[in-house]
Formats: sequence, C-alpha cells, structure tokens
Amino acid sequence: MTDPESLADRVQEGDLRIHELEAEADFDTAAEARRLLVERETETDLETIGDYSFPAERAEPNIENMIGAAQVPLGVVGPVAVNGEETSPSSQNSPNSANEGGAASGEHYLPLATTEGALLASVNRGLSVIRSAGGADARVTKNGMTRAPVFRVEGVAEAAETVEWVEENLESLREAAESTTSHGELLGVEPYVVGDSVYLRFAYDTKDAMGMNMATIATEAACEVVEEETPASLVALSGNLCSDKKPAAVNAVEGRGRSVTADVVIPGDLVKDRLHTTAEAIVEANTRKNLIGSAKAGSLGFNAHAANVVGAAFLATGQDEAQVVEGANAITTMDARANEDGTTDLYASVSLASLEVGTVGGGTKLPTQAEALEILGLRGGGDPAGSNANALAEIIAVGALAGELSLLAALASNHLASAHEDLGR
Amino acid sequence: MTDPESLADRVQEGDLRIHELEAEADFDTAAEARRLLVERETETDLETIGDYSFPAERAEPNIENMIGAAQVPLGVVGPVAVNGEETSPSSQNSPNSANEGGAASGEHYLPLATTEGALLASVNRGLSVIRSAGGADARVTKNGMTRAPVFRVEGVAEAAETVEWVEENLESLREAAESTTSHGELLGVEPYVVGDSVYLRFAYDTKDAMGMNMATIATEAACEVVEEETPASLVALSGNLCSDKKPAAVNAVEGRGRSVTADVVIPGDLVKDRLHTTAEAIVEANTRKNLIGSAKAGSLGFNAHAANVVGAAFLATGQDEAQVVEGANAITTMDARANEDGTTDLYASVSLASLEVGTVGGGTKLPTQAEALEILGLRGGGDPAGSNANALAEIIAVGALAGELSLLAALASNHLASAHEDLGR
Amino acid sequence: MTDPESLADRVQEGDLRIHELEAEADFDTAAEARRLLVERETETDLETIGDYSFPAERAEPNIENMIGAAQVPLGVVGPVAVNGEETSPSSQNSPNSANEGGAASGEHYLPLATTEGALLASVNRGLSVIRSAGGADARVTKNGMTRAPVFRVEGVAEAAETVEWVEENLESLREAAESTTSHGELLGVEPYVVGDSVYLRFAYDTKDAMGMNMATIATEAACEVVEEETPASLVALSGNLCSDKKPAAVNAVEGRGRSVTADVVIPGDLVKDRLHTTAEAIVEANTRKNLIGSAKAGSLGFNAHAANVVGAAFLATGQDEAQVVEGANAITTMDARANEDGTTDLYASVSLASLEVGTVGGGTKLPTQAEALEILGLRGGGDPAGSNANALAEIIAVGALAGELSLLAALASNHLASAHEDLGR
Amino acid sequence: MTDPESLADRVQEGDLRIHELEAEADFDTAAEARRLLVERETETDLETIGDYSFPAERAEPNIENMIGAAQVPLGVVGPVAVNGEETSPSSQNSPNSANEGGAASGEHYLPLATTEGALLASVNRGLSVIRSAGGADARVTKNGMTRAPVFRVEGVAEAAETVEWVEENLESLREAAESTTSHGELLGVEPYVVGDSVYLRFAYDTKDAMGMNMATIATEAACEVVEEETPASLVALSGNLCSDKKPAAVNAVEGRGRSVTADVVIPGDLVKDRLHTTAEAIVEANTRKNLIGSAKAGSLGFNAHAANVVGAAFLATGQDEAQVVEGANAITTMDARANEDGTTDLYASVSLASLEVGTVGGGTKLPTQAEALEILGLRGGGDPAGSNANALAEIIAVGALAGELSLLAALASNHLASAHEDLGR
Repeated sequence: MTDPESLADRVQEGDLRIHELEAEADFDTAAEARRLLVERETETDLETIGDYSFPAERAEPNIENMIGAAQVPLGVVGPVAVNGEETSPSSQNSPNSANEGGAASGEHYLPLATTEGALLASVNRGLSVIRSAGGADARVTKNGMTRAPVFRVEGVAEAAETVEWVEENLESLREAAESTTSHGELLGVEPYVVGDSVYLRFAYDTKDAMGMNMATIATEAACEVVEEETPASLVALSGNLCSDKKPAAVNAVEGRGRSVTADVVIPGDLVKDRLHTTAEAIVEANTRKNLIGSAKAGSLGFNAHAANVVGAAFLATGQDEAQVVEGANAITTMDARANEDGTTDLYASVSLASLEVGTVGGGTKLPTQAEALEILGLRGGGDPAGSNANALAEIIAVGALAGELSLLAALASNHLASAHEDLGR
Repeated sequence: MTDPESLADRVQEGDLRIHELEAEADFDTAAEARRLLVERETETDLETIGDYSFPAERAEPNIENMIGAAQVPLGVVGPVAVNGEETSPSSQNSPNSANEGGAASGEHYLPLATTEGALLASVNRGLSVIRSAGGADARVTKNGMTRAPVFRVEGVAEAAETVEWVEENLESLREAAESTTSHGELLGVEPYVVGDSVYLRFAYDTKDAMGMNMATIATEAACEVVEEETPASLVALSGNLCSDKKPAAVNAVEGRGRSVTADVVIPGDLVKDRLHTTAEAIVEANTRKNLIGSAKAGSLGFNAHAANVVGAAFLATGQDEAQVVEGANAITTMDARANEDGTTDLYASVSLASLEVGTVGGGTKLPTQAEALEILGLRGGGDPAGSNANALAEIIAVGALAGELSLLAALASNHLASAHEDLGR
Repeated sequence: MTDPESLADRVQEGDLRIHELEAEADFDTAAEARRLLVERETETDLETIGDYSFPAERAEPNIENMIGAAQVPLGVVGPVAVNGEETSPSSQNSPNSANEGGAASGEHYLPLATTEGALLASVNRGLSVIRSAGGADARVTKNGMTRAPVFRVEGVAEAAETVEWVEENLESLREAAESTTSHGELLGVEPYVVGDSVYLRFAYDTKDAMGMNMATIATEAACEVVEEETPASLVALSGNLCSDKKPAAVNAVEGRGRSVTADVVIPGDLVKDRLHTTAEAIVEANTRKNLIGSAKAGSLGFNAHAANVVGAAFLATGQDEAQVVEGANAITTMDARANEDGTTDLYASVSLASLEVGTVGGGTKLPTQAEALEILGLRGGGDPAGSNANALAEIIAVGALAGELSLLAALASNHLASAHEDLGR
Repeated sequence: MTDPESLADRVQEGDLRIHELEAEADFDTAAEARRLLVERETETDLETIGDYSFPAERAEPNIENMIGAAQVPLGVVGPVAVNGEETSPSSQNSPNSANEGGAASGEHYLPLATTEGALLASVNRGLSVIRSAGGADARVTKNGMTRAPVFRVEGVAEAAETVEWVEENLESLREAAESTTSHGELLGVEPYVVGDSVYLRFAYDTKDAMGMNMATIATEAACEVVEEETPASLVALSGNLCSDKKPAAVNAVEGRGRSVTADVVIPGDLVKDRLHTTAEAIVEANTRKNLIGSAKAGSLGFNAHAANVVGAAFLATGQDEAQVVEGANAITTMDARANEDGTTDLYASVSLASLEVGTVGGGTKLPTQAEALEILGLRGGGDPAGSNANALAEIIAVGALAGELSLLAALASNHLASAHEDLGR
C-alpha cells in the first residue's frame, strides 16, 4: 500500500524507516507520508508546509526527508542600475585576471527573499539614489573557488619535500584535476605547512557554477596524485584553509568565489535632497561605525549590513544560504570628494571579498529560484562561460552598496536632525 | 480600478510607484499586480513565486515590494535526543547566569530547509548515533542580546568622563532602557574608548525573542540619557561593537544571543559499528582540519560545517538568515577517552558562541515557520520566559553536533578505508 | 679552583654543567667562565658582551646562563608634553574605573632603546609639533592584568555547574587570590565554556607592577578553591584566554594591562608650517593605510608603527620585550576638524588596548633600566599605588602618537609634493 | 668649545638644539653632552647608561639623540641540535621554493637577551631533551619580504584597469624594482582592491638581509612605473597589507620574511624520565591551551610563549625588536604517536609564519649583536646568499620549540602530580 496514510502507518509500526519512504512511493507521496507521520507524532497540522508548488522530485538533489517547503516572502528592489563594460573574450592565459568584470550592465530588478521588515524599502531607497546618480560601477576583481585538503606527513622534512614536489609538478595536478570536469580550470595551488600537516589550497575557475562540488571532485583526483608521488597521506579533502562556511581571514584577504566591488559617486545635491544629509556626515558615520567600530570589535566585516542583502539575494536565487557567512566579509568605504564648484560629492563603495555565487547547479534549478534568476536574465550558463555568475555577483554588490548607502544616510540624517534640535534649544 | 492588470498598467504608465501598490489594493492583489509588472518588464513567467500559500498580509511586517514567496525544500531530521535538566526558576538576581540551560529535553524532530543535497542525510546519521549513545547534553551557558551605539566626544578626556558617568549611573540607564519594554532586562553596559569615539555595548535578556529590535529601542532610550548627562553625542545607534551580522571576534569571545554547547560521549563500539572508524581517527581529522587548519586560516570558525545546520534551522524556523554569519562562530572539539576495559570512547562537542534565536517575533509568525516551531513544540513564548528560545538553541546545537560527528566520521572512515587499501597492496 | 679559566676547563672536561657555574663562584666569575667556555667552543671573542657595567648578581632574578649583556643604543626624545589632570583618590569601590587617567602631566624626556635608524628623529618631530599644539591628553581608560586557567570537566553539564558556582562564589575566589598578595586586587572573573573545557579569566589591579607573576600566583590559589568546590580539574594555569604574548582579539577588545589613549588637536597652521601638509591629506593616508589597509589585512593593529615606540620604550625601561606583541594592538585615528575661521585642524589619537607596563619588579630594577625610569621620574611605586605605571602608559602613548603623526605627515607631504610635481608638468 | 659640559650649557641656553650635538662634536662627546643635559634637567645620574662599550659612531645608523646604551642580561642556551640537510644550489626558477631549508645543521649555542627570569633555564631543559632525542629538524618553507603600497584611483573601473596592467606587466615592475638592489629579487606582486584603493603586495627574496629597507626602496621604484602607466596615484608606500609590526592575518596565512617550522619526535621513555609526564598529558595541555584556548581568544598565536624566545633571540642578535609582533604568529602542535612496542612517543612542532631575520644590515653590525651572531657562526652574508638568515630562522625555531616543550611538559607534569595526589587521598 503506497497511499500516504498506509506508509505513515508502516513507519510508525517500525516496518519502514523514515528516510526510506522514497523507495516505496513517488516523491510527493513520500513527502506527504512523512509529513503525516510528523503531524501525528508532534500533534501538529503542517498544512502550509505541505502546500508547496512544485513536484517534490525536483527537490530530490537538494534535500532528503522532505516534508514540504519553507515559504519566505519574496519581493523585488530596483531597478539596479549597473554601468558595465563589454566583457572582452576571456583569455586562457590569464584565467585569474582581475578584470573579468563589467559583466552586468543596464537595469535589473533584484529579487530578495527575507523576513526582515524594512530591508527592501531601505535597499530600494539606495538604489533610487544610485539610479539618479547615473548608476553604479561594479567589477569582479578576482575569481576562484577553492578547496584545501590536509595531508599528514612524518614531519617538516617530508612537508618541505611534498611542497617542493607540488610546486614543480603543477601540470600533473592540473591534468588530474581537470580530467574530472568539462568546464573547470585549475588556476593554482598554494601550499601551507604547519608541523606535520600540509595544506594545499587549490583554486579553480568554475565558470557559471558556484563550483564547490566541481572543486571538490577535481581536488580529490589531484590528491590521489599527491599521495602516489609524495610521502603525504590525505587526512581530509577539506582542511579548513578553503575556507567554506567559516568566517576566515584567508577568504577576506585572498578571496573565494568572486571578489567584487561596486561603487558610485553621488552628487552633493542628491545627497542633500534625497538623503537629507551631507557627504561629510555619512563619512563620519562610516568611519566611526564601519571602520573604527569594526576594528575594535576584531571583525572581518567592515560594513553596516551587507549580510542582509547577500542573504536575501542568496535565498531568492538558490545560492547556498550557509555561504552568507563568508559573503559577509565586506568592506564599505565612504569618501567626501570636493568639487570645483565648492560642493562636495559622496564616493561610496562596497567590496565583497568572497561572494560564492552561481547561475547553474545547486539550488538554482528549483522553481522559485529559477524564476528569480530569470527576473535577472541570468538563469543558466552565460556566454562567455562565467559571465552570468559574474553579473550576478556585480548586481548583488550594487544591492549591498544601496543598502549601505541607505542605512548610513539614515544614521547621518538622524544625527543631523538631532543636531538641529540641539541648536534650536 | 484595483484589479491587478489595471494596477500594473498604472505603474507602467508612471501613475503609481511600485512600492505604493499596497495603498491601492489589498496585499495579495498588490503582490499580484507587482508580479505582473515584473513579468511584463522582464518577460518572465513567475507562476511558482506567485503560488504561495498564505495571505500576503501576514508577511506585511516582514517584507516590502512583495511579489510572492521563495520556496525552499524542507525536511526533518531526528528525533534529536536531548538530555535536559529541569530548569530551575530563574533568579532575577543572576539574569546572566551560566546555567540557564537544560531547557530542552526529550526527543524532537528538527525541521531544516536547505538546497544542499546530502545535508539532512548526514545530520540524521549523526543524530541516530547520538540517540544510540543515550542522547546529547546541551546547555545555554550565556545569554545576552547586544547593541552598541557609538558616540562622538571632543577627545579622550571627555571619553574618560563619559565612561565614568556610565559606570556610576547604570541604574539611570537601566530605568530608561527598561521603560521601553515589558519583557527585556538590561544585563550590563560595557564601555570601549577609541580616540574621540565611545562605544557602549548594552546587553539584554530578551527572553523568547531574538531581541534585536527590543535591544535597539531600549538602547535608544538609554542613549538619550547619556547625551543629556555627558558630553557625548550619538553618531550611530549601532557602532559595530554589537556586532550584528558581521563575523567579529567580540561575538566569538563574549557571545551574542545564546552561547550554547552540546556534547555527547559515543561508546567505542558505536564508533566502530555505526561510524566505521575509531575515536582516534576522528580526533585526528578534527585536530588537523577544525583546529589547526582553522588556526592557519585566521578563522573564527573552528568547525566543519556548523553553518549548514544553523542556516537550515534558521530558515525553517523563521530566524534572521543574515545572522547565520555569527551563528557560524563555533568550535568543535573531539577527544578520545580511554575506558577501563581498554576500549576508547569518543567525546564530541560543539560550542556556538553567538546563536541569536527566538520563538516569538520576526519571521517566526509566518505560516510555514510557525508550523516548523510547532514541530519542535516551541512556538511562542515559553514558561519561564526565555525557555523556548533556550530550548531552540540547544536543539540546534545538538543538530550541529550531529552534523560535525557525521562529517568527521566520514572523513576518518574514508581515510581508514584508504589506509586499508594501502596495506592491501 | 674558582678562577674563570679553571671553571671553564671543568665544564669542558664534563666535571661541571654549564648552568651549575653559579654554585661554584660568584656571579661575575661564573659569567666570565661561561663566556670563556663559549669563546673556546665557538672560536669567538666576546669582549663587548663581557664588558657590561653592573654586578652580574643584580641580573640574577632576570636570567640564567649569563655570559654578559646585550648593549642597545639608547637615546631620548621629547620633552613629551602631557596635559594630565590630578588623580582623584581612587575609590575602592570602582577599581576598574575608566577614569584612572591623567596620571602623567608636565613634560618628560622619554628614553628609547632601538636599532631602528630614524625612529627617534621621527618621534621627536611629532613631539615637537605636539608641544607647539599645547601638549597631548592621555588617559588610562581601563586597567586589569589577566590570567585565565583552563579546567577539564566531564562535559557541558559540569561546565555549566562550574560556571554557576564561580559566579555565585566570587568572594571565596577573591579571598583566596588576595591572600597571596599585599597589593593586588581581584577585579573580576569572566568564565568561558568550550565543550569540556572551562576557562576563567581573572583580572587584577596590580598597581605599579606589570603584575603577571602576581596575577599568576593569586590565580593559582583561587584555582585550588575551584578544584575543591567544583568538578573542574586544572589543566593549565594559563589557558591562552589571558592572553599573554600572543596577538589575540580578547586583548584588543577587552584590554590587558593598561588600555590607554593619547590625543591632540594640531591647529591647521601648525600642520601646514611644521608638517608641510594638510589635515585632509593626513586623514586620507590614515584611512587608506591604517584603517582600510589593516581591515583588508585581517589585522588587530590599525596603526602605522606603534610597535616601534612601544618596543623601544619597553626595552629602555625594563618592560617585558615579548609583550610588545599585544602592546601593538593599537588603533590610530585622524580627523579633520573645521574651524570657524575656515581653517582645518587635525585631531589625532592613538588607543593602545593592552599595554602591560610596570615601574616595579621584572626588569625595572636593572641598572640602565632603573636609570631610564628615573629620567621619567617614575622609578618604583607611585602614590597612589598604580599612578606611576599609569603615567608610564600615558607617556608611551603620547610617544606612539608622535610617531604616528610624524610618519603619516611624511607620507602625506610626499604625496602632496608629488601632486605638485604632477601639476607642474 | 666642544667639551661635553660646554655643549650641554649651550643646549640649555638655547644656543643649540638637542639633536644637533653630533654636528658640533664627535659622537661619543655628543652623547656625553646630551646625557649631561638630561642628567641636569631630570636630576638623575645616568652612569650605567653612559658606560657602554663601543664607539658611539658605530650606532650612528641605528639611533639619533643617543645618550648611551641599554644593557640587557645575555646568556646562552644549548647547544641547539639541528638536523639540517645540505642546501641545494637555489634555483632561479623557483625563487619562492618551499624547500630552501635545512640551512642550519650541527650544534649551536643560541644567545638570548632577556629580563624574564627562568626563561633560559626552561628553554635549556627543552633543548637538552631535544638533543637526547637526536636533534630537531627545521626548514624554512617560504621566504619573502613584503611591501604593499596603497594607491588611489577614481573607482573600481580604474582599479580593475590598474590590476590588469600590473598582472600583464610584471616584468616592467621587476626591472624597476631590481634596478635598485644588487641582491634582492622580486618574487611576485599580489593585487588587492578595496573600493577606490588598490594595494600591491610586493614580495622579495632579500637573501641574508631582513630586507625591509631593500624592499621599500625597490618598491618605490616600481611604484613610479605604476603611476606612470596606470591611473593609480600613490598614497603611501606602505598600505598595511605588508604588514609590518602589526599582528595581521595576512602574515599569519601567507608569511612574511621566513616561514619556518621545527619539529622533533621525543621517545616515550625520554618523555617519562626527563619531562616527568606522558605524551598524552602534553597533547592534552597543548590542545586545551594552545589550540582551543587560542581559538576562543580570537588569536593569531596558537602557542604557549614563542614570543619569549623570538624576542630574546632578536634582542641578542640585532634583529628589529618591534618585529617580535609578527614573529609571534606561531602554531604549536603536539601529537602522541603509538609505537610498535606499545609505548607512545611525542611529536612536537612549532611553525612560525612570519619570522623576519637577517645576518647583515640593521642592528646586526652593533658590537654585542655581531658577537652574538658569531657565537652562532652566522655573522654576515652566507653562501649561498640567504643561507645564514635561513639558518638563523631555523635555530630560533628550534629554540622556540624547546620553550614550548618545556613549558607544556611542566604544565602536564604538575597536572599529573596533582592527579596522583588526588588518587592518594
């Protein structure tokens, strides 16, 4: 009997295990049976969780033990105005080129999924000012998905021997790594030695994929070569120097996925009329809060709330929500630039060191997520390969820039308001 | 005309702005009109995004410019077995008591929403072993939601004067802060001086709420007192020493929200039979990867993938997805403990320094999120106040522990397998 | 035979061990014999090392296996102009008061020992400008020498139990700790839990001593109480949360030893005439280098070269040279302040988070070091207790401020010069 | 009149400035006059400071405003037993080769200057055990002195353009940089973009010199090319991504100066007989203190007291005392290795990420410092170039290893002793 009720009965009777339901019925029925079981055991009604709008089968690569879907409110901000340049055909000879950027151009609605009230309104205000200022520039300045296995050796003598072999045999490693992938390219391998542990940080151009799986599989193949040719013995395919889903300086300094910067110059009159403050007041708030405050906090995040925009865009577009952790390694700068006419413009920038995004693979194929990428015009692989993921990174960066601008302007204008009140006394 | 088509027309004609739709029609119609508009302008079909299962009005506190919902596959893991203790009636005199813990006990299904294939299967394997070992212990060892405004002073002389006033007038600040909230309690204020900036880190017991709004409003009231009584002038309500949604050492060291640890001892035979490895091999993987690898990476995250579980639980239960950033400040420890009978057990722990969770407010009221909290039996406020959020923190910690155990065991058993192959040559 | 030659012979013949020479002869003879031995074995002539100017016996608490002394060039900078306030009689009830400061006032020559050419000239230039600006303010804003033992417990349940006992029995710990010292006062104990490890960070007011030994001995006594009354078992008297001689965020955030800030406002005409640049140019250099550059570097040091001044002052005055590590946790800020008359002044500050200094104990009794403290008028204990060490911290902070000012001004004026050249083309 | 008294009179009368004395008399007389002046103004007797043992002129490149010398007790530890390998002739093609190491071999007395009582005794105990174990291995695994100027650009579009130019014109930069030095070689340039700032981290092989001056001068020449060929404008020759004398993750991760590891395997019986403890107990202390404790502290230093040995060796041998800051970025690992005979050996290692040392230039020419280098047999340039500085790095690393071993063993044996007492109750 494969109706949901009977299946739930069988699990309760110990006849089936909860994760074995997909072997007994189609995916939707299995999910329903599992949901029934949880409802019974927890005395709940999971009607809304069960009322999802896609065939459960489509979620098969993304989850186990499915009972339905979480629904998170999704809205749009924008349009996001990006002044991109034409992407020159990327050269095979400089795969890690700093100027892969300018992939995004024109105007895009950016879909954001969140439960944080006022977030979209705030970002929207910033985007509106950016549009009035003629749009923001954005560039991916570095690109490389990393994986860093850790090996055991007898001691530093063997470690030095291993590192030397790796440095002299990069081509062997490349051959092994790239044999596992049709798209990925090995950009380099950086060795680190700590006692009797050797870490090799492999970096790949994974094109339009976020690429962690691609990088892992390719690195695994390369590790076999290392184990064959050197005294090193693999302990773990990830030795945490990658570093995935941890707030690590190695990513903040060297980048992971896309390193991307967005910036804009807001004319002084726009700052005054639309943000109700001055460039100087915004600079002060940024310096005391985002630079000095973060410095004192021992932080890797020198920004106001970049994680909000990164998180909401990741959720909407099917990125890995746990990678918001390193996506938040961002530095916001604000500068007052004097004009010849005596007015002062505001230069504003956000630099995200390790934004891991893709437009193929992972959660991007799920229905609402694919639709969200379609809103951006970035669903699937780009041409040239990697251009869609670059564009997504650039648009998210402009969104984050808008969020920073808006929040800092609000702080600065409150402060000005309060200062005016003081003067009025 | 308030049908969606007409409304969309009016926005396209410039008669209405995209964020003004809710003023012209009910929330669902407004969302539909906006979705229509985006579909027209981007030439897309957003059918699934539009097919959400709740009245749009319920999302009103959570989003602006709504066009629908993101749907993320949701499953369950568990049961999570937690050996809690009865919570003693919490003393008003020690609100920051280390032993608020043991709020969770018994067995709970933990709902997780994710797009990361294999995550639930992996966590489930770990939870199964934890159940066989008799369940995990978990305790909230510290609790305090923080907000740290930054003030401008003339220089260090005024800074010292301000800090002295704050230290001597904590009661005035408490009175002002607590006047804004019926539940929150001010636990303390920690001052920091950098040049002509003074940062005051306010910490609150926000009970079952994650509490950032509560803390912000209360702190704003206290700031008015500081501005009246000292030379300090408020620059920003958040000076980044809070530190919200940034990967900051201040949170990793001092905590924010709940500091929570979960641990378990896995008998040696379970390690062998169910994890197919040894305590020693798991300890080696943890030491080289999570401790030494993270040390070399300059990381605040000494774990394998705690962010995966934290992120998926946050998404399912309506927590703030951007706070996964500091939720990932976790340390995983593994220790081999020799038994009298010559076997070796595995001690495993995860300590999350700054897990910001709530069971009331924020996204917890949304339909699928509320249902997910009902699965856990933790929807709404607990008795005593704070016990539900404590229990949620403890259960997530056990989930993270299961994820760590499972992944490290996989690494260790692969390694063992590979070692066996080597021997077989 | 106790002449140096014979003693050296006996060591070479294996009759004596190299560290046993002090048991056979007076300290100077022992040092000479050891030096002879090293000269023979390494075929060197250690004449200058042997030509030290104090009885070797005076170095007995400071070194073993002595063969002579290192001689490091020592100069003076200054006078250092400090605008201190009278120290109010420190209250027993607020031992950790932020306003202990203003201990230093008047003008002081600051002795610096270094091998870094141009350092004293640079600091001197900065001090000269500071004097012309009317002197700098300086305040110790926090004071506490810390020691953080680590204990082993069975797991988090015992950890929570231990922490609760500690929080409820602070007086017992104080009694035990203070029984070992006539001067030191326990300021507080901060507990941290990581799995089955409990760290207790004890903080002490150690008055005019740097106080690490005092803190260690007092903490050892308190640990015995913890072991008796709780399930915790001591593993190490220092568990690295102290944190001594390591670059740790816990010190940068919470301080260790003295947290001290020095600042000054340099009138615009002085900036122009004496530093040959503008406030704006100095602010730009500070922001791009010390704030943003350090942010990108993942640094705990947001300054240009504070370690140079701290290191040279430590060496001259007998501080612990290895504590330069945490003495370098400094933030430099620069701000352009507009005047009513249209000119722009420069606000400059340096905040040292963890400057561990003393005027009694350790290396302060050695002859050249004691003379250096006498130059400052700060040899020995102050009245009230702690005032001499506070004053030393404040004077070093002003020295560091001068070094920052001078170097940043040089960068800014070079830049201006180069800009002028560009314009001249 | 150029006798000291008259010169001091003239300064007091305002006829001469304190830093102009060297223009009026020879260096020793100038120093004496300045000392006299300070004695008069501070009513002190600086006899010992004035009783230095070298011609003041020799300190001329190292200090200004000299009044004498600081004398710091200096002793020896050792012999340090290093199992080096022959250095293969270094290849021009792999200038950053991991295996430059094994430069040191044989036995060396290591001179240490300190005021920290018990330090030399502790290090000596560790070295004695290392000798009994057959000596330690040590290798320089990376070598590169860095300098990272910061440039201003209009925004990210220009930043990307600049970075692209740099990556495509490395040879032009090399030519300019190497034109300024007869020894130094440019190893590479790593670009970093933050908003409208571009940082270029230049790395050099500076052979036997610590090389900061060499790197600065060479980089200055390269910067002129960058300014000519790109839109970038130099703001500061050091943009703090170098990072010099600041505790920065970039150094801990990527290294600066020498990255060096020393390790040793101590047979179980030696651990028992000489260190009075077990490998397991030492591993536990290292894990709870140096790994987990440092992790919780947000530290870049995962060791017990490496800074003590680094600092004392730097002081003795004329290194830059302020660079102890990054020299303390060290990770200590300890591992218990089971033997076939059922006993357990101890593997111990120390990895110093950024040890900046030289045997030529800087303070190495001063008399006591040069003698100290002669004790080591490492005064002046090595053959091949760089081998002496490599050897110095390796010997210091073994010294640090000995210090770690000794302190951890003391902690572990205390703990064991205490455990025995407990059992005896």
